[in-house]
Amino acid sequence: MSDALKLGIAGLGTVGVGVVKIIRENAALLEARSGRQVTISAVSARSKNKSRDVDVSDYAWEDDPVALAKRDDVDVVLELIGGDSGPAKATVEAAIAAGKHVITANKAMLALHGQELALKAEAAGVNLRFEAAVAGGIPVIKALTESLAGNNITRVMGVMNGTCNYILTRMESAKLPYDVVFEEANKLGYLEADPNLDVGGIDAAHKLTLLSSIAFGTQVNFDGVELEGIGQITIEDIDHARDMGFRIKLLGIAQMTDAGLEQSMRPVLVPAASPLAPLEGGTNMVVIEGDAAGQIVLRGAGAGEGPTASAVMGDVMDIARGLKITVFGQPATTLKAAKAARTSNLSAFSLRLNLKDTPGVMAQISTALANAGVSIDRMRQFSHNDTSAPVMIVTHPTKRAAVEAAFRSIAEMDVTTETPLMLSIVDA
Amino acid sequence: MSDALKLGIAGLGTVGVGVVKIIRENAALLEARSGRQVTISAVSARSKNKSRDVDVSDYAWEDDPVALAKRDDVDVVLELIGGDSGPAKATVEAAIAAGKHVITANKAMLALHGQELALKAEAAGVNLRFEAAVAGGIPVIKALTESLAGNNITRVMGVMNGTCNYILTRMESAKLPYDVVFEEANKLGYLEADPNLDVGGIDAAHKLTLLSSIAFGTQVNFDGVELEGIGQITIEDIDHARDMGFRIKLLGIAQMTDAGLEQSMRPVLVPAASPLAPLEGGTNMVVIEGDAAGQIVLRGAGAGEGPTASAVMGDVMDIARGLKITVFGQPATTLKAAKAARTSNLSAFSLRLNLKDTPGVMAQISTALANAGVSIDRMRQFSHNDTSAPVMIVTHPTKRAAVEAAFRSIAEMDVTTETPLMLSIVDA
Repeated sequence: MSDALKLGIAGLGTVGVGVVKIIRENAALLEARSGRQVTISAVSARSKNKSRDVDVSDYAWEDDPVALAKRDDVDVVLELIGGDSGPAKATVEAAIAAGKHVITANKAMLALHGQELALKAEAAGVNLRFEAAVAGGIPVIKALTESLAGNNITRVMGVMNGTCNYILTRMESAKLPYDVVFEEANKLGYLEADPNLDVGGIDAAHKLTLLSSIAFGTQVNFDGVELEGIGQITIEDIDHARDMGFRIKLLGIAQMTDAGLEQSMRPVLVPAASPLAPLEGGTNMVVIEGDAAGQIVLRGAGAGEGPTASAVMGDVMDIARGLKITVFGQPATTLKAAKAARTSNLSAFSLRLNLKDTPGVMAQISTALANAGVSIDRMRQFSHNDTSAPVMIVTHPTKRAAVEAAFRSIAEMDVTTETPLMLSIVDA
Repeated sequence: MSDALKLGIAGLGTVGVGVVKIIRENAALLEARSGRQVTISAVSARSKNKSRDVDVSDYAWEDDPVALAKRDDVDVVLELIGGDSGPAKATVEAAIAAGKHVITANKAMLALHGQELALKAEAAGVNLRFEAAVAGGIPVIKALTESLAGNNITRVMGVMNGTCNYILTRMESAKLPYDVVFEEANKLGYLEADPNLDVGGIDAAHKLTLLSSIAFGTQVNFDGVELEGIGQITIEDIDHARDMGFRIKLLGIAQMTDAGLEQSMRPVLVPAASPLAPLEGGTNMVVIEGDAAGQIVLRGAGAGEGPTASAVMGDVMDIARGLKITVFGQPATTLKAAKAARTSNLSAFSLRLNLKDTPGVMAQISTALANAGVSIDRMRQFSHNDTSAPVMIVTHPTKRAAVEAAFRSIAEMDVTTETPLMLSIVDA
């Protein structure tokens, strides 16, 4: 029997409390499986006396997470504070400098500073693991880094923000407008302090960049993500999409092309038969495509105390068992800078146009689309009020740039009552 | 840069050829990711001169896989021969005895001899890895053993035999009877030399026992599986199930109860909305439920050259990176003997009865069910010929033993023209 693996936990929010619970409740299992006890030496959080769902009085208390990271009786520092820099990053840096392994659930920090931290961790010879940072309890980091390590990865996709998926599916099932469901989500505590991290697609984009780095051997590049949130999606968009056999999902897609690394996080239409379509609420799904494995689909809870703590504990158990692995699947010194490229795939698009109800408008729209080389597959005009007619057009596969050009022409014509919306149709 | 990791490949069938291809085509990726070259020293197969899809003339040839396993220039032996004992087992034993790591795709061998081989491997301090043995390219062994190691696993389920799923879904889509589709599958090379391994559920049950061992910390126990194949499923069963909102899948379920380890592999009905329902052809799906992670669903190709070779290469890369782990997730010396228990969960059942078309038969059936404590939720009689009326009954949740008792009474009554069929409805 080896010595116990001694943890220091920085941050006692949902995830930290979940980890403490697992370590207390499943202690015998953890020891049987890793061959050593897994114990907690010390914890740190903003408020020592806050009432928590679990008793932490057995563990040493540190007001300062950086001090916790330096403790001699800590082998592994769990950074569960959050925030892309500040105390979280300081804690991770202190832990690495002190030669301790780090486990974090912090996608924002890694998306912005992952390369720098990976270089430091690898130079210090410690692990920096982050299964909990992407898609909650779904073991996607391990699948990509380890299980699929023999594959040339061709594409990674994912629905990875439970809050956005909750909003979109709740709008559909309850027939409620975006603003009302947004407020509901806020009251339920589903939204980050800055809601734009969720509904702006930023949080999901952070996660996508971590998957890209592992998949394509590139340095994390958040600035290279084409980013669009869900704020412009209306209940009508959802209904019209469903009528035409689609559902709307905030989907991240990453692929490497000759032009560079394409990363996008946008609301898209997926066919009703896609495995992505039936995802409800906080469920996440990640799709990984490799040259040998083909398509692997992973699904599970994308957030919450148990699932996220389960992911943290997977990393803890790896370290207890002696795993030694680079942060992004190959040495950070060998990760190439990612040249960002714009989405190049041809795809069909769904266009939502609210047309002024005057003669000749449809002809103008059709002409603008034709002039940009966009060909119409299906079109449908929905019942309308006195001044504006909602039209949904499904195009034949075309370039995103062509639709954008058509939209610029249409904007100049003054024939629409609202900004048109384009959503690509992803055949996933 | 460490020394190269040198492989010896025993067996050059579909999987072995796939592995050779990956090692040749993705050599640079493998080296970048593992920090060392991955090379092949020697290969072995039944026929040296057989025409193969890949050139193996660069590698030393051994007629005898046991000799290959003992070679000094081999660090890891890949046992891709197959068969539950014979040369496959001899090769694995020789490799372990020679202090070499072993990677195998051989579920039959592990299901029958896994405990013995795990004890040997762990005593010798070598890895015995088998990701490719279960569900092809889906990383389920790693997910269960490593990612979910913090969880008390509550249930494992899976559709894990692509041939059975091909037959069932092909019967449905092409409206063809079992015998015809069975012959099709045979001609396509989907069936094992002994087809009963596939359609009898044995192959899938082998896989289930490996998952059980990891999930519940028990010794592999194939004899404890309640086993039923798909041979009795008719096209009418499939159609009637669909009419009532279900699909038929050969599903394995394992769970630990106070009475012991329940393992079953049987055709069951799943609701059309279940993630298991849309699985077509050779696609596999595994569902793992843990106390912290909740439900994790993994889906991908369950067989084939690329997917299976991808799984083998995941294990190769783990070993190249220095992974050291017990075979079934905890030391084999600590795995408990699994006391087999029969399925205890209450479940609804679908009963197919072909009733003689004479007055009073339905009353007799209803009475037999009532006497056994089986309560009818829905019943439907389908159009029938002169002598036999097919009836589908969906019961309220009840014990399997109660339905079996009712079936025994019905058998004594001489009111049916065929043996009745019971399929549990699994709400997965």
